[in-house]
Amino acid sequence: MTARINRNTRLCMSLSARPGNFGTRFQNHLFEALGLDYVYKAFTTTDIEGAVRGIRALGIRGCAVSMPFKEAVIPLIDELDPSAASIGAVNTIVNTDGHLKGYNTDYLAVVQLMQRHAVPTETRWALTGAGGMAKAVASALVDYGYANGTIVARNVGKRRDLADKLGIAHADEAREGTQMLVNATPIGMAGGTEADALPFPLQSIAASEIVFDVVAIPPETPLIRAARDLGKRVITGDAVLVLQGREQFVLYTGVQPGEVEVDAAARVALAP
Amino acid sequence: MTARINRNTRLCMSLSARPGNFGTRFQNHLFEALGLDYVYKAFTTTDIEGAVRGIRALGIRGCAVSMPFKEAVIPLIDELDPSAASIGAVNTIVNTDGHLKGYNTDYLAVVQLMQRHAVPTETRWALTGAGGMAKAVASALVDYGYANGTIVARNVGKRRDLADKLGIAHADEAREGTQMLVNATPIGMAGGTEADALPFPLQSIAASEIVFDVVAIPPETPLIRAARDLGKRVITGDAVLVLQGREQFVLYTGVQPGEVEVDAAARVALAP
Repeated sequence: MTARINRNTRLCMSLSARPGNFGTRFQNHLFEALGLDYVYKAFTTTDIEGAVRGIRALGIRGCAVSMPFKEAVIPLIDELDPSAASIGAVNTIVNTDGHLKGYNTDYLAVVQLMQRHAVPTETRWALTGAGGMAKAVASALVDYGYANGTIVARNVGKRRDLADKLGIAHADEAREGTQMLVNATPIGMAGGTEADALPFPLQSIAASEIVFDVVAIPPETPLIRAARDLGKRVITGDAVLVLQGREQFVLYTGVQPGEVEVDAAARVALAP
Repeated sequence: MTARINRNTRLCMSLSARPGNFGTRFQNHLFEALGLDYVYKAFTTTDIEGAVRGIRALGIRGCAVSMPFKEAVIPLIDELDPSAASIGAVNTIVNTDGHLKGYNTDYLAVVQLMQRHAVPTETRWALTGAGGMAKAVASALVDYGYANGTIVARNVGKRRDLADKLGIAHADEAREGTQMLVNATPIGMAGGTEADALPFPLQSIAASEIVFDVVAIPPETPLIRAARDLGKRVITGDAVLVLQGREQFVLYTGVQPGEVEVDAAARVALAP
């Protein structure tokens, strides 16, 4: 209830060009479920410098950062966590008594998902995409020992840049013997121009063991459906979305929510 | 409910050195009662320039301004309403598409109270106090035609400054024939150093017709109690607080709340 908001309630927020409702619903649901005196509100801005100055001046506790501000906030904050420094992109700012530290919880979520699914570090993987999310996922994999990777993308220059930076291979398509396919493009995203397309050919999916799709909406993308039909293990984009949101919650509040509470908040937040 | 907060919810806020709970409770109660997609949150700051920049950058709809920022915000905003220009103090900022306009709803509330209580403009009044609230009340009275006023204060220099600015008299105490006594000092305020004191001598109260106390907490100050005991008409500080909050609500939302809703919000907001 807004009726419970009082002078001590701490505000967390988000900054993005086009705010969605996931963060607002997810965080507010957890704040209420755990009885924490916090409230969450999404914002957009055309003045990122003024917005970050406002975060400092108003003592706003935390801020989720989305496109197109993930790199622009870096010179405006005081410290980078390795999760953000490694990829040069911040998706979360935590304000501790005026000291702003940047994190990347997408990166942290990928690391946790690999551990949850017990994916061996020697797994041969291919990742398609070369944008910000591709960078976050590929960097997390390489940093945590998944060294047998290949970046697959249409744009040779971009894929080479990312692959060279990480010291891994790049190619036109997934190489033979690839065990894990990772989609970090918008292909399969609801409302996108390629909502019905597959980011990898069916024969690559058939030859793999694990399929990891970063696209969260819908939870069952054409890639995930095809992988399930072929009996593959899948890691879905909504799991990334929820885990990175859980990490933000922990960073903001210092409280570890239980699985039951996280699942309930995720259901509310992912409801259409 | 914070559960109802979504990406389109508009934020209103307050800035003060020591935030209270009145504004938060009052505005949030009205937002919910009238089904408006707004939420209100109190803030403090040590960087008023950064805070106002944040209001612009984040598109925060409105901001209540309290001590010690009422004058400091003036050079930071774009336009002053006559209510604020007249006294050189802003207690409300309204942000319309990045254009910040400053108002003083204490001033507006005093004008409305005089009308509600049908106080004739020829009424002879004496006001004690020389601070910001005294300035707001006395200016509102003079601007709206209550020309027969006297400023009563211990500090001769301060009372002279205010009286001269308004073109009215000043004195050590209320003059004979005073019909309305106005307290704009903290005398009688709960928790203050003079919580049990009277700002005017009993014989002045006995000789008057109307007693107006700007102190809102408690609603029944020693002055108001004495005036009631002597059968005088009273105007209480909580009426000022509620009316100025109602004006803020109208400025933020464009909606005129009904008396029933305002009374209900006031009860919630003034509850101990």
